[in-house]
Amino acid sequence: MIQPLEELVEALCTLPTIGRKSAWRLALHLMERPEQDALKLAESIVRVRQKLTRCKRCYNYSETELCPICSSASRDQKQICVVEKPVDLFAFERSGRYRGVYHILGGVLSPLNGITVDKLRINELSMRIINEQPGELILGLGGSADAETTALYLARIYRQQGIRVTRLARGLPVGMELEYVDQITLSQALNERTDVHYES
Amino acid sequence: MIQPLEELVEALCTLPTIGRKSAWRLALHLMERPEQDALKLAESIVRVRQKLTRCKRCYNYSETELCPICSSASRDQKQICVVEKPVDLFAFERSGRYRGVYHILGGVLSPLNGITVDKLRINELSMRIINEQPGELILGLGGSADAETTALYLARIYRQQGIRVTRLARGLPVGMELEYVDQITLSQALNERTDVHYES
Repeated sequence: MIQPLEELVEALCTLPTIGRKSAWRLALHLMERPEQDALKLAESIVRVRQKLTRCKRCYNYSETELCPICSSASRDQKQICVVEKPVDLFAFERSGRYRGVYHILGGVLSPLNGITVDKLRINELSMRIINEQPGELILGLGGSADAETTALYLARIYRQQGIRVTRLARGLPVGMELEYVDQITLSQALNERTDVHYES
Repeated sequence: MIQPLEELVEALCTLPTIGRKSAWRLALHLMERPEQDALKLAESIVRVRQKLTRCKRCYNYSETELCPICSSASRDQKQICVVEKPVDLFAFERSGRYRGVYHILGGVLSPLNGITVDKLRINELSMRIINEQPGELILGLGGSADAETTALYLARIYRQQGIRVTRLARGLPVGMELEYVDQITLSQALNERTDVHYES
């Protein structure tokens, strides 16, 4: 009916978690707010696509050839955390606990979906390991079957090269009631139980 | 950390219902999808702001001086539905039941919040009524106290001028925003609209 508005709704609908009703609300909000603010969002979208490339070392988004993490003197450059995608890296960064660097795989192995070794940045990781000789490779991958397979695949290769390969602990999420934990998680939490440390 | 990405997240955060976590997910999605698609969204935002103005008759968003509804031969130009904002108009249009035209008030009276008669398009409505001599004025306002007050105010003015003034049937849940009403309820409320009774 109103062509530009409907086109905006269509474009918003392609975003994850945004349905048609939300898209309409967002579109009308973008019409009603000060024009400056709406255009700022448009410019921000253009800018991320035009200014950001990939860090040539870890493949995170970066404005510069080497991303701030890869070029930081305060990060442990010998500890590499392998993650599936940038959003996972940002999750680690938000936790504020990790002081090493990253390697973005670009996915996990999923042969049935055509995601084979050559589709991921595994060769790039192998080259990094040869060049950088890291002390530890942390497999910061998720809990899906494909992620597990990928972790095992990578662990096998790099452990043979004498690299220490670790993965994230499997266990109970913070705040989770025991009765709601699924069986596999509970089994893993039991298998990987740790000694209790307490102040004497 | 990555300036353009953080700026995009900030811009996305200003949208309704988008929190920081959703904003990150959307921002990274906008990086990962084909550049064309991301830029299309940016262009759509720019286009709605640059191409759309207000219809000079009903004040809905329009590309042209007169919106498609106001210039349609298949709509009843003598039946005016007064709504608060464009999103409400689109809710009526989605219901598919209404064949008249609209008048966008731009809000409802709320003296405590500084929304007085002169802040709304009430003078414009009065001019329209003089010029167009509509057969019916439907008050398509929501169920809030301010909306009720506004409906009574408008009913009093225009009924004195001999115009038939109706309002939506009391099928609307108290306090419910019009834009969230489901289509069937809205259709029924439209069908069962009643004459406004007020104390003189």
